[in-house]
Formats: sequence, C-alpha cells, structure tokens
Amino acid sequence: MSNTRPTETNTIRARRLGLDTQFEAVVFMRKDCHVCRSEGFSAHARVLLCHDGHQVIATLYQVTGDLIAHNEAALSESAWSRLGMKDGDRIVVTHPDPLDSLSHVRSRIYGHDLGESSFHAIIEDIVEGKYSDIDLSSFITACAARPLDHKEILALTHAMVEAGERLRWPAGIVVDKHSVGGLPGNRTTPIIVAIAASLGLMMPKTSSRAITSPSGTADTMETMAPVDLDTAAIRRVVEHEGGCVVWGGAVRLSPADDILIRVERALDLDSEGQMIASVLSKKIAAGSTHLVLDLPVGPTAKVRSPEVAQALAQGLSSIGETFGLRTKVVVGDGLQPVGRGIGPSLEARDVLAVLKGEPDAPADLRRRATALTGALLELAGAASGGKGEAMAARELDNGHAWAKFQRICEAQGGMRVPPKSRQQRPIAAERPGKVGAIDNRRIARLAKLAGAPDDKAAGVDLHVKVGDAVLAGQPLCTVHADSPGELAYAFDYATLNPDIITVDKS
Amino acid sequence: MSNTRPTETNTIRARRLGLDTQFEAVVFMRKDCHVCRSEGFSAHARVLLCHDGHQVIATLYQVTGDLIAHNEAALSESAWSRLGMKDGDRIVVTHPDPLDSLSHVRSRIYGHDLGESSFHAIIEDIVEGKYSDIDLSSFITACAARPLDHKEILALTHAMVEAGERLRWPAGIVVDKHSVGGLPGNRTTPIIVAIAASLGLMMPKTSSRAITSPSGTADTMETMAPVDLDTAAIRRVVEHEGGCVVWGGAVRLSPADDILIRVERALDLDSEGQMIASVLSKKIAAGSTHLVLDLPVGPTAKVRSPEVAQALAQGLSSIGETFGLRTKVVVGDGLQPVGRGIGPSLEARDVLAVLKGEPDAPADLRRRATALTGALLELAGAASGGKGEAMAARELDNGHAWAKFQRICEAQGGMRVPPKSRQQRPIAAERPGKVGAIDNRRIARLAKLAGAPDDKAAGVDLHVKVGDAVLAGQPLCTVHADSPGELAYAFDYATLNPDIITVDKS
Repeated sequence: MSNTRPTETNTIRARRLGLDTQFEAVVFMRKDCHVCRSEGFSAHARVLLCHDGHQVIATLYQVTGDLIAHNEAALSESAWSRLGMKDGDRIVVTHPDPLDSLSHVRSRIYGHDLGESSFHAIIEDIVEGKYSDIDLSSFITACAARPLDHKEILALTHAMVEAGERLRWPAGIVVDKHSVGGLPGNRTTPIIVAIAASLGLMMPKTSSRAITSPSGTADTMETMAPVDLDTAAIRRVVEHEGGCVVWGGAVRLSPADDILIRVERALDLDSEGQMIASVLSKKIAAGSTHLVLDLPVGPTAKVRSPEVAQALAQGLSSIGETFGLRTKVVVGDGLQPVGRGIGPSLEARDVLAVLKGEPDAPADLRRRATALTGALLELAGAASGGKGEAMAARELDNGHAWAKFQRICEAQGGMRVPPKSRQQRPIAAERPGKVGAIDNRRIARLAKLAGAPDDKAAGVDLHVKVGDAVLAGQPLCTVHADSPGELAYAFDYATLNPDIITVDKS
Repeated sequence: MSNTRPTETNTIRARRLGLDTQFEAVVFMRKDCHVCRSEGFSAHARVLLCHDGHQVIATLYQVTGDLIAHNEAALSESAWSRLGMKDGDRIVVTHPDPLDSLSHVRSRIYGHDLGESSFHAIIEDIVEGKYSDIDLSSFITACAARPLDHKEILALTHAMVEAGERLRWPAGIVVDKHSVGGLPGNRTTPIIVAIAASLGLMMPKTSSRAITSPSGTADTMETMAPVDLDTAAIRRVVEHEGGCVVWGGAVRLSPADDILIRVERALDLDSEGQMIASVLSKKIAAGSTHLVLDLPVGPTAKVRSPEVAQALAQGLSSIGETFGLRTKVVVGDGLQPVGRGIGPSLEARDVLAVLKGEPDAPADLRRRATALTGALLELAGAASGGKGEAMAARELDNGHAWAKFQRICEAQGGMRVPPKSRQQRPIAAERPGKVGAIDNRRIARLAKLAGAPDDKAAGVDLHVKVGDAVLAGQPLCTVHADSPGELAYAFDYATLNPDIITVDKS
C-alpha cells in the first residue's frame, strides 16, 4: 500500500487550474518544489493525490517556469472534482501502488483470455480514473488485436454494467433505441419517445451531449426542455408520462464506456466486441428490455458495409439475449444528413415540425422515426408483425404524440421555444445541376465552426437533398451563427471546401 | 493537406511554459480564445503548430481559468524547441491531417503483418513527434499482442536505424557493449572502453543519462570528464584514442527508440521483438560491428529467467547477423547491486578504484568488467577462445587501461575529480546476522531520494554484499546528500522501508 499519511514533505496547497482534460486527471508542480524533490518524482510520472478520504491518480507535469508557485500544486478540473476540493485545501502527493489490474491487460497481450474477475478489476480501475491514456490505449488495442470471444464480450459487458448505477423500472417492458452515430441531423429520438410513450410503452431515454458532433440528442432536447435531471427527477417524469429525453451525464450508467470511447475515437478503432459491450452496457444499466438499433450504413458513416452491420447485429442480439435484452437492428441509409437542420435549435425545429404534422416537415426524418418506432412496437409486442410503422404514423397524425411530447417537456421542467440565430448567410450553387453528394463529416464541421453546439441556435440549415436539381445561385444551405465573427469563420471554411455539397452537371 | 496559411483567426502569440513533458508536445490555450473558437477545437484534441517552416503536432489542453491570457498559446519545452521559437514569436494553430501511418497500426491490429514501407512510415511519424501517447501505446501493444516475426523485427530495426543519424568509422572492427538495465551500480562501461581501446580496438561508446535510475553511464562519466560532445568532437576523440564514453543525446542514433522506450516502460511491456529492435537499431546506427550484451538475470532485474535470456540471445544474434553485426550475450547474476556506490560520483569512485588497481576496489565490478571485455575481445578476434578475460585483467594490472582512460578523459575535454557529498549518514544493522537480500529497485529509489542523479555527489554507498555477516549497529550503507533536508527525505523513506537490506538471523 502507498503511504498516504500526510507529512511535511508530501503535503502541498492545491490550486484550481480551470483545465479541461476530459477524464484524465493532471497535476502541475514545480520541478524543484519540496514534494517533487522529496518524493523523487520524474517528469510525466503517475502520482497519487489524496484529500479528505478521496484519491485520484494523476499525470504529473513538471514545470520549471513561473507558471506555478513553489508551494502549490495546480489541478485539472477532473482531478479537482474527484477529490472534492475547495480553494486553499491541501493535498498529499505520493507514489501510487502499481495497478494489479494492468497485469491482466498484459496477460491478454501475451495471449491469454480474460475471465470475469479480470474484466471487473480492469473496469473498476478505469472508472476510478486509475488508468492513464497510455494504459487505456493498451487495453483497447489488446482487445482488438485478438478479438474478444463471446464469453469475453459477455464478461466485459457485465463488468461495465456493474461499475455504474443501474436503473430499475416498475414496468415489465422497458423500450430503448440507440443510433450508431455519424449522421448529422439524425434526431429521431424525441419523436420515437413521444410516439412510444403515447402508445403506453415505458421509454426512459438517457442521451449524450455532443463530443465531436455539432449536437447530441441532449443538446437538441435542451432547446425544448430542461434535460439535466437527477435519477429521482427522471423517475418522476417517467412514472407520470411513460417517457423522457434527458442527459445521461447526471446518471452514471456504464461510466467506463464514456472513458473508453474517447480513446477509441482517438485511435479510430471500433472493434466489434467493444462496440457491443459499449452499447449494451448502457442499455442494460438503464433497465431496458427491448432495444432497437439504428445502424446507418454509408461511405462517410461509421459502419461502411452491410456485412459489418450484419455481424454486429448478430453479436448484439446474442449477447443482449443473455442479459434478458431483446434487440433488433434496423440497417438504414447513411448517405447524407437527415432532416434539414444541423445544430441544436435547427434540429429541434425539424423535430417539432414532424411532431406537429406541419406540411413542410422533413419527410426523411419522419420516415426514419416511424420506421424505428414501428420496429420497437413490434419487438415489444405492442404491434403485430408489419403493422408497427403504420401504428406509429397514426400516432403522429392524430396529434397524440405531439400532446405527449408537450407533457413530457412540462414534466421535465417546462417547455421552451428553441432560440433563433442572429446571423444567417446562404451558400449558393455556383452552377446549375444535380446535387451529387453531401459530406456528413465536413457539413458537421461547418456547423461546429458556426458555433454549434455551444451556441444553441448556430449550425447549418440544408435546403437540398442528394439528387435534387438546382439552378445557379440557388441556396444549397444557410449558415446560422450568433456573431458576424463566427459567421465569417464558418464561411472561410466553406470557401476552402467548395465541395462539401457537390453539384454535378446534369 | 492541412491549411497552414496564417490568417487572423489561426495565428496567436506563443509563450514558453517551462513544462517538461519529455517527448510529448503540449499546448495550452484559452477555451474561448479566437483560435479555439474559430478552428472549433475540442478538449484534448491534437493540433498542428507551425512556425517559420517548422511543424509539430501537439496535444491541446483547454483552459477556462486565468492561467493563460486570451491572446496567447503556452507551449511545453518539447514543442518550443521543435518549432525553434523565440519569445514573442507567433504560431499558426490548425487541424492536422489524419496520419496515414496510423492505418498501418490499425492494419496490424486487425491481423495483417507489416512490411518494410509500413514500418518506415510509422517510425518516421513517431520521430517527427506526430504520435500521441495514445497512438504510441497502441502501436507498442499491437506489436506485442501478436509477436513480430523475424521479417517484421528486421523491418522495424531497419526503419529505426534509417530514421536517425548513422555513424561510420574508418576501422573494420568497431566494438560495443550494451547492458540490459535494472542493476544499480553496474557501471562497467568506462572500464571496458579503457581496456578495449588500450588493446587497440575501436570503441566509440554513446551512453544514456538516467531516466528512472539514480545514474546513467553518461551521468557517472560526467563526474570524470565532459560527455556532451557533438558528432565531430566524438570523431576526433575516437580517432585519437580509439574510444570514448559520451552522452548519446547529442547524436540522434535511432531517436524512435528513446520515444518508444518511455511508453514501453510506462506499460511495463517488453516484447522480445521490440527489445531486439531497440538494442540493435542503436548499435547499428552507431556503426558497431561486434557487440557484447550484458544480460543480468534475477528476481528484481529486468530479465527474470534463463529461458527468456536464451530466446533473446537467439533473436539478437540472428537479426544482428543480417546487418553485419556479430553479437554475443553474456548472461550474468542480477541478484544485487554491483560495486558499492549508487549515484554518479560514488559509482565513478568505484570505476576509478578498479582502473587504478586500488587494493580495496570492488571485486565484483572488476570481475564483470573483465568478463565482458574478455567476451568482446574474443568476439572481435583480438583474443583466442577462453583467453579474453585474462588479457583484459592484465591490461588493468599493468596500468595501461588506466593510462588510456586518462587520455580519453583529456580528449573529451579534460579529466575531473568527482565531487564529494556534504552530508553523510549511515544506516546500521538493527541486529546481528547475515545479509539476506538487497532490493535493487528500492535501493535505487533511496539513492534518488537523496538527490541522485541531479546532485552528482548524492546517492548510497553500500558497505555489505548478500551473504556478509554483520554485527548489530554495523553500518549497512551510507546515504550521501548535498543538504540536510534531502538527507532527511531519504531517511524518512529508509525508516518506512527497513527491509531494503534484510539481515537474517544467523
């Protein structure tokens, strides 16, 4: 065991640095401060920080300049909050014990399969923030270089579920929906929840905020109602209305997933086993019993071939089954963005148009929402085979889903009107022709440059779909921003990338 | 290609942070500064920094507090020096292109062997600082999870050699020696070089400074002569004296190795293939033709079993052969520290005692040095089989090696007297008995706490060996430090760890 007893030589005043490192805890200290000298820390070492019963392992950056005072250690936000610090508090900084669970990671690297207890030990240490980026990357690579077998995926999923909170619901059937991301504007969730809840199903939906995209479902929903609810509040909303659309961040469902996903993204590495454990652990922890998976396939989407989609579907349902979770995968078209708006407010406008049944509501968004809801209704036994989609469409047409959505928003804290942007500027076609392609990745980038998701009203409004005929000078999309400066930034990018939306000669 | 053209929105004044991150380049910027906003960077992103024709990819830390001003980007030392910055210079910060070579890493993860061009692309990007810690860890893990085959080790070694400087020597035979670390005080190199050069062999030795140990060969040598020589100066010394012992840092021999080794250490992962490529790439780049490898085996040493040592020896000689490098592995005892001193000056004192033939010179250090030199003489054909060790011993006894060593020191810039510590305090046996064990790892830690290697005179002087009989109160070792404070720090650790040197009841 590390000696965490405070002594004169290992204790130092802590300062809040306001440094966003996402999950990685970081501490800055003077190389020549009394703690670095007495503990003999080397640059870039891993150190154990202790305060008032809390512990966190952090990466040490040693500073020789005057950035940090001699008698202080400066902490990143993640370290600060994990230690429950107040300004002026003192911390103990010592050498951490070697992590036993890393020997399991090495064991897998050296060719051995891991059992349940090994995965539990690894995931527990990850959730406690004990793994550095280097450790996380090694674990993820080790699980991809020799694919996890069925038993291992099961054990990993189990460990991930156990490492966080777990919600339980009174209903026997709890439905859920998950989209394997990558498609801008694919904001079907609020519509699906409204229809399913209106038809009497229980659908307590926790969603994420954007990490690298211009909007997450939680960001879009937040323009229409509060989403930052704790577990008790979520329970109240769902008990009254049958459904909710809230931010999952306040509920710690499979917290390991949030940590692993950041590194998987950096590595651009999505092994089948990890993807299955990632999706299922969140849903099992959320108490779901029936899950529909929206899997868009396309050249600039996450899943690029029907074969990969098929293998993934197979794995998801067989592992899900073991946990009592019935799963159906709906493979969809991932060619271009869904609806028109990209960015929180603009997407909310599309969602509301579909729910209200407005005549110009985006047809593709409505079609996707009713198809996924239909699959969910059939999977949960609420509709007979082949009848689900029509049942979902009816619930939109008769206004029940819209009424339910308003009640859900009220229950979450009060319905809001999505804000409108102050600055708009269209991007026009340079020549007549037919829209050939829309680049999912770069149109998302454009929306982010305009300020989404931090500026709720910012983003891109598409006026065309692939295949549409356009005239020279006709607006292809409109960029929305809050300030002329941001509008200009976005336009710089658009000018440098004239082929985000391509127009082919017809 | 990234757009690195300076614009108003991607240019910012740089500030030197004095931050030691070892190799990883790091940049700090305000989350709300004009560049972060206009470029749409997310927390912990990888960004491309450009200045005056230089480029480096850095990890971005976003700050919300007042640590960094709005109009500045603060750079770590590695980023600062790679960009060739002066205070007040402005840099361009943009999104880097995706690294093509990472697709080779992914390809190996997905089960494909890598060819020569893939390893070249990977190693080139690593040397240019384009890999994050996450990327490096994934590459290392991918090469360990499915062991590199002979062809791949060859290709990796070749790529590592090509990525740096390469020395060429006039002699047909250039000898070298490498110790696979972990044994404190194992400072045979200066003795071996002196003997070999005195016998007419060419031995241009580049050594490392301590990274995690209380002293590297370069640190010890530096107490006796300057070691910070550039390639031209090294060449002059070797042409005159036949040998040198200099710091390798000024010569970029296999620079990828220095970067990879830090992450391998953090992961405690030493795959055979990577170890072979690491050792051989340095030696081939140094122009060596005959190499003796000192491989101590023991429970607290790096290599723990004779079987592993054997496999390693086999791989080293077969890969070495391909590059025209003849290799002999000497498996030694790695049970306890070598000699008496641990720390730069104390080790130098032992080295000098052996070279001068002083009656109380540490016998084990002398024995190891003559055994390794003997093996080297036989390998290089300078001694017939079984006669090498005696020839090496004779060269010590007749004073020739000592005379040669003095000339080498003079040629390197002038011989120095190792400094003596200001503070000493012995640690005494608490009871009579026999010394049972000395923990290599923790005795090294004690020496570091006393101030080694930064304080050259600091460290630990051992007075006993395993098996020695001791009386109660007899000093087991003496701690040397520069200040009473550091002596106290080291003693705190010794008090908490009374079993660094165990005394068994006899």
